[in-house]
Amino acid sequence: MNKVRVAIFGASGYAGEELLRILLRHPNAEIVAITSRKNAGEPVETVFPRFTGSGLKFVAPDTAEIAKKCDAAILALPHGLATEFAIPLLEAGVKVFDISADFRLKSEAKYKEYYKADHPAPELLKTAVYGLPERYREQLKTADLVACAGCYPTSSILPSAPLLAAGLVSPKNVIVSSCSGVTGAGRKVDLPYIYPECNESLRAYGVVGHRHLPEIEQEMAFAAGVPEMAINFIPHLAPMNRGINSTLIMDAMPGCTLEKITEVYEKAYGQEQFVRVLPAKRTADTKYVFMTNCCEIGYNFDAHTNKVIVTSCIDNLTKGAAGQAVQCMNIRFGLDEAAGLL
Amino acid sequence: MNKVRVAIFGASGYAGEELLRILLRHPNAEIVAITSRKNAGEPVETVFPRFTGSGLKFVAPDTAEIAKKCDAAILALPHGLATEFAIPLLEAGVKVFDISADFRLKSEAKYKEYYKADHPAPELLKTAVYGLPERYREQLKTADLVACAGCYPTSSILPSAPLLAAGLVSPKNVIVSSCSGVTGAGRKVDLPYIYPECNESLRAYGVVGHRHLPEIEQEMAFAAGVPEMAINFIPHLAPMNRGINSTLIMDAMPGCTLEKITEVYEKAYGQEQFVRVLPAKRTADTKYVFMTNCCEIGYNFDAHTNKVIVTSCIDNLTKGAAGQAVQCMNIRFGLDEAAGLL
Amino acid sequence: MNKVRVAIFGASGYAGEELLRILLRHPNAEIVAITSRKNAGEPVETVFPRFTGSGLKFVAPDTAEIAKKCDAAILALPHGLATEFAIPLLEAGVKVFDISADFRLKSEAKYKEYYKADHPAPELLKTAVYGLPERYREQLKTADLVACAGCYPTSSILPSAPLLAAGLVSPKNVIVSSCSGVTGAGRKVDLPYIYPECNESLRAYGVVGHRHLPEIEQEMAFAAGVPEMAINFIPHLAPMNRGINSTLIMDAMPGCTLEKITEVYEKAYGQEQFVRVLPAKRTADTKYVFMTNCCEIGYNFDAHTNKVIVTSCIDNLTKGAAGQAVQCMNIRFGLDEAAGLL
Amino acid sequence: MNKVRVAIFGASGYAGEELLRILLRHPNAEIVAITSRKNAGEPVETVFPRFTGSGLKFVAPDTAEIAKKCDAAILALPHGLATEFAIPLLEAGVKVFDISADFRLKSEAKYKEYYKADHPAPELLKTAVYGLPERYREQLKTADLVACAGCYPTSSILPSAPLLAAGLVSPKNVIVSSCSGVTGAGRKVDLPYIYPECNESLRAYGVVGHRHLPEIEQEMAFAAGVPEMAINFIPHLAPMNRGINSTLIMDAMPGCTLEKITEVYEKAYGQEQFVRVLPAKRTADTKYVFMTNCCEIGYNFDAHTNKVIVTSCIDNLTKGAAGQAVQCMNIRFGLDEAAGLL
Repeated sequence: MNKVRVAIFGASGYAGEELLRILLRHPNAEIVAITSRKNAGEPVETVFPRFTGSGLKFVAPDTAEIAKKCDAAILALPHGLATEFAIPLLEAGVKVFDISADFRLKSEAKYKEYYKADHPAPELLKTAVYGLPERYREQLKTADLVACAGCYPTSSILPSAPLLAAGLVSPKNVIVSSCSGVTGAGRKVDLPYIYPECNESLRAYGVVGHRHLPEIEQEMAFAAGVPEMAINFIPHLAPMNRGINSTLIMDAMPGCTLEKITEVYEKAYGQEQFVRVLPAKRTADTKYVFMTNCCEIGYNFDAHTNKVIVTSCIDNLTKGAAGQAVQCMNIRFGLDEAAGLL
Repeated sequence: MNKVRVAIFGASGYAGEELLRILLRHPNAEIVAITSRKNAGEPVETVFPRFTGSGLKFVAPDTAEIAKKCDAAILALPHGLATEFAIPLLEAGVKVFDISADFRLKSEAKYKEYYKADHPAPELLKTAVYGLPERYREQLKTADLVACAGCYPTSSILPSAPLLAAGLVSPKNVIVSSCSGVTGAGRKVDLPYIYPECNESLRAYGVVGHRHLPEIEQEMAFAAGVPEMAINFIPHLAPMNRGINSTLIMDAMPGCTLEKITEVYEKAYGQEQFVRVLPAKRTADTKYVFMTNCCEIGYNFDAHTNKVIVTSCIDNLTKGAAGQAVQCMNIRFGLDEAAGLL
Repeated sequence: MNKVRVAIFGASGYAGEELLRILLRHPNAEIVAITSRKNAGEPVETVFPRFTGSGLKFVAPDTAEIAKKCDAAILALPHGLATEFAIPLLEAGVKVFDISADFRLKSEAKYKEYYKADHPAPELLKTAVYGLPERYREQLKTADLVACAGCYPTSSILPSAPLLAAGLVSPKNVIVSSCSGVTGAGRKVDLPYIYPECNESLRAYGVVGHRHLPEIEQEMAFAAGVPEMAINFIPHLAPMNRGINSTLIMDAMPGCTLEKITEVYEKAYGQEQFVRVLPAKRTADTKYVFMTNCCEIGYNFDAHTNKVIVTSCIDNLTKGAAGQAVQCMNIRFGLDEAAGLL
Repeated sequence: MNKVRVAIFGASGYAGEELLRILLRHPNAEIVAITSRKNAGEPVETVFPRFTGSGLKFVAPDTAEIAKKCDAAILALPHGLATEFAIPLLEAGVKVFDISADFRLKSEAKYKEYYKADHPAPELLKTAVYGLPERYREQLKTADLVACAGCYPTSSILPSAPLLAAGLVSPKNVIVSSCSGVTGAGRKVDLPYIYPECNESLRAYGVVGHRHLPEIEQEMAFAAGVPEMAINFIPHLAPMNRGINSTLIMDAMPGCTLEKITEVYEKAYGQEQFVRVLPAKRTADTKYVFMTNCCEIGYNFDAHTNKVIVTSCIDNLTKGAAGQAVQCMNIRFGLDEAAGLL
């Protein structure tokens, strides 16, 4: 079988680096272009010495040219830029996997509320498939445009969706408190992200109205089968490179027990390669998903407050970005879903 | 005025080290004994080179002997050992400041429930004053036995108590999600605490029934003026040495606004030297309380879920342990409350 | 072709974990046994949750039993234990790859000097091949017992050997100053290795007579073609999980220039997959070899002191331990040398 | 006695923050002005929340105005800016303590060689006193302009000078290999300093011709009593906030023994409050000087190479910058040398 020819747009950030790491050893894919406006013309090792010998060189993002030679494009661009790349690529028949948040919301109104602008291509919001394979595997098989699930959303939706769908927890009063490593902010050169500002620092940010909030609410509501949900999502920055730890506190519904939770997770994820549900009462640890595409889930039941407490860890650059995109791409092109990801 | 003569019991751990750091430069206190069973006979610099030149030497914890020459004893011992030291010291007229959790609960029953044993001296539970100066300053002035507030409890109670007392938030459904640096586990030599197990790791533990839970519930209930509260307290271990970040999510009561919260905090803490309430909508950062006795508080109101969200940071070894003990001691002996702590 | 059947002795440490990570995705090898006295009977995920689903279980190190079903044994045991395992395995025809230092020295006398004991099987010192493929590839092809090069030695010998062999630097007065991440100490539960003792700490240790010293001197002397060398090797512990950075300061010989160094390295390593020589005047960074089997080398010439300064980075668990062992095994069994290592 | 009135120029960087921390609790000094072009007009807590309540506000660096109301000015400015501030301040009779490297070299030629520009006020190079109290205490008592010793130089000169002066080590062939925490680079917002680029990274830089080199050589040569020295100084960036660890490897002179080294250090530093010489054969640790003004020194003798190996640790922001400046100021104004520094 021919290899899937992949172009990476925005390859000089951390998600780009992770895509390179994964795709360079992918048995059924080959990288045909990597773009970076700033580094165009330079060999990849100028930015990432670890890829010396790959022969790759950054090029300017000439979409028309690149579209001619690739089957798939993975967009690892800052927020708001995806549309201008996606449209010509889609027109040229290229399958597009967007790592940004640009196509994740189904509601134009919500997009406008959270991004303070009209969406530049609202019709794409309708056709885009949400790139979370454990929830949308079937739809992904024929998707043209995939809006890969974000890092915080992945770590929030995977542990909550089956419980909401099974009616074991209430769609009201859901709390998600998350901690992310600093690569979650991208390869951003800004005072809050220099080493001495992050080391020995743990701080919340965006505690009200974070941009990942509507995406989490949308997917939780779909799972719960309710028109809308309003939750609290509170992200924190933690002094580590990689990893997201999300702690979910949810109201147990009548009849909810640890045993039922075990059953529901077993049914939802027992066959999944990239979700690891721990035995009851244990907690997830970012260390054990470091540089893997796995989501680790631990769960517990607190009888004294009647709450279900779930912890969930992913590597924000792998399952939270590059790994997820490749997993979606594998599904779309009929490859082994785990190709390049083990 | 004569200096307060202080003995430190259990001086070879991290809280002990912090006590030494504070008391060696305290203008109105002098260290007359430091105990360590393991290091008895050795100069302090064997364990902590930074105190070379202090002339201090560890001694065995001979309570009777030490009681003769000190006015105050600070106990920095592992859980469960305080009673046997406190009783003879109190009988000898020494004021006792216990950093452990041994005397913090008012209820014998709760003690038994969480510590799986009868309390060895339940009458002391009644007379002990809870060592949180911002809440119990008056009582501390005449206390014989002070049960210094714990690290997680301090970071949870200080931000919530005024809001509960003012009826701005509900005593029901309170959530506290905390992250602590590794010194919070003490100077414990155990696999989960070695560097490679903690670095790049963020994990919850004790998510149901942590031992600090009843202490937090007790003090929140006192503040709220209700007989009992049941909350969720979820601690996490984060890859840093010092610092606790607690995020509290509480149901707003009718009429609660950001302005009212500002007012309540201003009234509660406007004159406090060791509580820093940030302007509305900001968040606390462990970095800014590192090696200080300060509790930093940030607050916000989420209209879409009707929740009050408060973040609170302390240094677990200072305001969460040694600094708090010294602050309590300063109050008890009529010294400047901030002596040695700036 | 049949897969090489591999047994890992001492699989519950960090080198063991890295061996599992590598061998579980190795296309031409399969793990047939993993031993751990302490964890015998437990599934591998009890110790390392990331390997859930592998189906592996720790067994007691019953050498005779295990020898029957494996082609290769990799020993990841603490110092001093390898001989008792190696002898019966070799007798049973199993190829043995020892990660410890037990068989690295050619001289019995040096062994005794540094390890304070007679070597239990001095004849094996003679037959063991030093497991550094870039230096001993031919001998490895037929070796029965491979003494895999240590972490500090690998990072010291690879950058110096070609320069010594070419006479560009003097065998006298060589200085190696190295910094290692904490996994270099193994998964050791001891006070100096707990997180708060390592974080914000950088300290030298073993500055005179470190056990890796005679191994480095032996291999440098072989490269230089002199009977003996005496160098300074000064290791430091740095607050990171993985990585060794070695800085070598060597006296330039007459006629040494940057251009000649470039040539010599090009000749030595131009075809090597796991050595990356940077352009002149750059420096190596542990970050760029993290979780790879690569040794990165940077070099410079200081005319004002007539010194050649070389920096060299490896991942101590990969090229410094598990990766190197697998690379040696691949060579010994005629596999692609990079199998499992990219 | 009146308090010394101090102005801090460039108070919004890390050295500025450390100066604020020290001077706000200094018993004999008061801060009368803190300058920052960028933050002029803002209260100090905008930049550093920990100083809330100090009442300090950043002002523009109006030298003439500020000179009227201060006795001492501490310059914590980037390289190359000190002269324009120092001249008017000195003319107004203010004592100037410069933390930058601008006045540290005695030789105009060396300045030009390393800084690629003529010095703007070469006469000041002659009158400036090198701000290393343990070496120049007498001269500091009457100095108008103090060129505070740099961080790397302090950690290199203090351990080597007494040995060079006593003839125990050779002035030839001195090697200094140092590791610094990231605050050593200042509060600089640049890609190499963001958290994910520094964490799990250890890398050398400036291995040939670093700007601190001529300063170290100058002071070592003064100590050795030779006209010139040429040494190797190799700095590394390590993943920590604070701390410098310097390892010195020096050729022992005939007759050098550990006992003689002990004697020489005892004589040089036995009475010094801010130098801690460890017992022979131990090594210094950055952890034990963290946030102190102390230089910790460990020494050893390697008979097999005839080298003296010394390790030396300081906190780069305290003894390496702000603490040193305050120590110099204390001496200049006849205060207790340790005021504010314990």
